[in-house]
Amino acid sequence: MAGQGTYVEESFERDTRYIPTRITADGRDGFPVEAGRYRLAVSRACPWAHRTTIVRRLLGLETVLSMAVAGPTHDSDSWTFDLDPGGVDPVLGIAKLKDAYEARPDGYKPGVTVPAIVDTTTGQVVTNDFAQITLDFSTEWTAFHRDNAPDLYPEALRAEIDEVAELIYQDVNNGVYRCGFAGKQESYEKAYDRLFARLDWLEERLATQRYLVGETITEADIRLFTTLVRFDAVYHGHFKCNRSKLSEMPVLWAYARDLFQTPGFGDTVNFEHIKAHYYEVHTDINPTAIVPKGPDPSGWLTEHGREALGGMPFGQGAPPGSVAAGEEVPSLEQDRG
Amino acid sequence: MAGQGTYVEESFERDTRYIPTRITADGRDGFPVEAGRYRLAVSRACPWAHRTTIVRRLLGLETVLSMAVAGPTHDSDSWTFDLDPGGVDPVLGIAKLKDAYEARPDGYKPGVTVPAIVDTTTGQVVTNDFAQITLDFSTEWTAFHRDNAPDLYPEALRAEIDEVAELIYQDVNNGVYRCGFAGKQESYEKAYDRLFARLDWLEERLATQRYLVGETITEADIRLFTTLVRFDAVYHGHFKCNRSKLSEMPVLWAYARDLFQTPGFGDTVNFEHIKAHYYEVHTDINPTAIVPKGPDPSGWLTEHGREALGGMPFGQGAPPGSVAAGEEVPSLEQDRG
Repeated sequence: MAGQGTYVEESFERDTRYIPTRITADGRDGFPVEAGRYRLAVSRACPWAHRTTIVRRLLGLETVLSMAVAGPTHDSDSWTFDLDPGGVDPVLGIAKLKDAYEARPDGYKPGVTVPAIVDTTTGQVVTNDFAQITLDFSTEWTAFHRDNAPDLYPEALRAEIDEVAELIYQDVNNGVYRCGFAGKQESYEKAYDRLFARLDWLEERLATQRYLVGETITEADIRLFTTLVRFDAVYHGHFKCNRSKLSEMPVLWAYARDLFQTPGFGDTVNFEHIKAHYYEVHTDINPTAIVPKGPDPSGWLTEHGREALGGMPFGQGAPPGSVAAGEEVPSLEQDRG
Repeated sequence: MAGQGTYVEESFERDTRYIPTRITADGRDGFPVEAGRYRLAVSRACPWAHRTTIVRRLLGLETVLSMAVAGPTHDSDSWTFDLDPGGVDPVLGIAKLKDAYEARPDGYKPGVTVPAIVDTTTGQVVTNDFAQITLDFSTEWTAFHRDNAPDLYPEALRAEIDEVAELIYQDVNNGVYRCGFAGKQESYEKAYDRLFARLDWLEERLATQRYLVGETITEADIRLFTTLVRFDAVYHGHFKCNRSKLSEMPVLWAYARDLFQTPGFGDTVNFEHIKAHYYEVHTDINPTAIVPKGPDPSGWLTEHGREALGGMPFGQGAPPGSVAAGEEVPSLEQDRG
């Protein structure tokens, strides 16, 4: 995300005015699902964009929906394609994601955020509604799902997934930001209490079941994972979410490692991008922009023992194959090189 | 300390121009050891002052050397006696420790630091040389040591204590500050590597022996303890010393808990003062001045199992009695309310 509420204020409130346009099978908003027409702009750093990279890979949408990866750091103009040759996205032909927002005729103002899906025929952002995008991947892009793709949003479980996801959004996904960007001690402490109360609740819920809802990986797990994977690297110190590290909450830590080691999760994580983004961009809370060298991420690869709880990660489906060429992230082994 | 190098610069260097005057048994610098003449000014927050509160208590000097406790936070005028009625130290009659520094005829400039020993007959600071003060408590104030006081600086072990203490000073005590106040990524990483290499070295050394040097608690242990006790509460997050928490280094964590639970150590620790000081005073690295609510300190009271390594905390001596009236710190149980 970024550009949308990432600043210190008395009590942090996220600006949730996203673009409501949807890309659907029937194209009712003028944007039908089509192979090769759209480009997904993400940053490896951003937890909201991270959801889309996981779901895209689990469903096998790489060949029909290409991906532009912005660099981890940016100035007040927000995300740029500085990782690409010449600093320009080779498909969109722009240096700054901002350009695709400004190309919209409606002068959308709330901010330049990822994930964003750009229509390559016009160069305009179609949607940045991160909460809807992954659900639409699951329910609208079905014609392009790979063989044996899992059902991440099974109809019978949608009510429960939505309910759990909402609690996770309020208290955890957005809760860590409420801690980190609180400008007053009281609002920080309120957010901290709420965050850890919810983590305790999750610790208990996940003690006896492998996944959050049902017997398989669902959208709810993906949404929780993107915050958990950033917890010790960023939120614990930078956002002062420091009652304990994730690695000190045994159930959640095993749950997170289980997912990390599942194809589609760990292979979409770039810890260097994650740390660089938060510590270098948020100079209002880290004026030196020094990036902590720790923590040691090798623990992510240790045994988790969660198979004993039963469940089937992909249900009747199968795990995704290898990561698409050009979309690899550094492995933890390489990092430690 | 504070006032002496506590600011962000490319590579943090501590200003070590302390006042070299010593209070000695023979009074050769004009300041003989005397009961009731001097007042020790400290802050519970400061690790350098913390050494003096531990040694004073272990040796039983409370009745001959009174103590002024400054509040944990301060402005650019440095430590103040804002905890005292009317904000004035009842013995020295001053609101700011600065006044006792400025009362010196030599116009000492490097900064207003604790620990400082003030001559109550003149109101002038006699010394602030933190490294010498505790050694002088052990070797010059012997006439006033309590019955059964331990020998914290035994002659036969002084060379080894000095050697270990110097490594600890450079890499750990001052090393955490080098991490936290580094203005450049490179100097931060150098300090971080040096810190954790030394902690690994200590982890190994302490795996087979209960204390750092010899079979009993010495000055070396006190110097290490004051940094370790602040590690997870402050240095891990605030100073980015985050390869791991102290609680994730099993030997050092058990060693630190062993000391914490020894009379004279934990009963001189005030976690609220420690956290408030670092997070509220260092607005150059924590502009919001928000104080993290974590970590949960209850782990300090858990069993450590270090007795199995042998050794005798106080050698032929005995532990100190209860804390002097008026010098109590909040217990962890009280903190957790």
